[in-house]
Amino acid sequence: MKKIYFAGSIRGGREKAEDYKKIVDILKKDAIILDEHVSNPKLSSTGEKISNEEIYKRDTNWLKECDLLIAEVTNPSLGVGYEIGYAGSLNKKIVCLYEESANLSGMISGNPSIILIPYDKIENLESKLKEYIK
Amino acid sequence: MKKIYFAGSIRGGREKAEDYKKIVDILKKDAIILDEHVSNPKLSSTGEKISNEEIYKRDTNWLKECDLLIAEVTNPSLGVGYEIGYAGSLNKKIVCLYEESANLSGMISGNPSIILIPYDKIENLESKLKEYIK
Repeated sequence: MKKIYFAGSIRGGREKAEDYKKIVDILKKDAIILDEHVSNPKLSSTGEKISNEEIYKRDTNWLKECDLLIAEVTNPSLGVGYEIGYAGSLNKKIVCLYEESANLSGMISGNPSIILIPYDKIENLESKLKEYIK
Repeated sequence: MKKIYFAGSIRGGREKAEDYKKIVDILKKDAIILDEHVSNPKLSSTGEKISNEEIYKRDTNWLKECDLLIAEVTNPSLGVGYEIGYAGSLNKKIVCLYEESANLSGMISGNPSIILIPYDKIENLESKLKEYIK
């Protein structure tokens, strides 16, 4: 199974945490999610109980290990943006999911190496994601 | 004079646009700012009137050209996060400025290669920035 790094906002805001969980539940059917904690609705915007240095080291190691980065980018997030920039430098395949109404950065929407998947409902994402995770 | 890429939020929100201008006005005294438009308070969160593809191409070229990336990271922003991740992959020096109360991503605050400068007032930044821009 492919290893997926799922990127979602933590300290940038947890408004979409329930949606992250739904997306990760779809992905988990056919792939290994390296950082499933991001999708835990109980995780608040104060973040995890480990040091920032440990988070950075662990997450960059997971980014090196993953086959694919799937990011939910509806909400602005420094960490998600960083992870996309970092994964791009490693030539990882990158898929960005977002609500159709999102005001995406030009650095994401104008980036020719990123696969963009807008959605209206999470439930409609499953068929669109299948081809990338199998 | 050094060439600086200044990173600030555009589509993530323009709440800090006046502060971006003050920071760029400080930097301009001793350096060339490649992307001064980011600090224009008249630029709204709908962004510039060029295509996303043109923005991406221009900004990544500026990131390659700059000597130093200075980012204001108080507000969450996908584009700023991406630019930091991208500049890091090019081994550029990166300085992140933020209000002391900001809830920074661990990918920024835990990154050993980023210089972090918290501030209370923009006016107190000038002396702290001098050593990086001269």
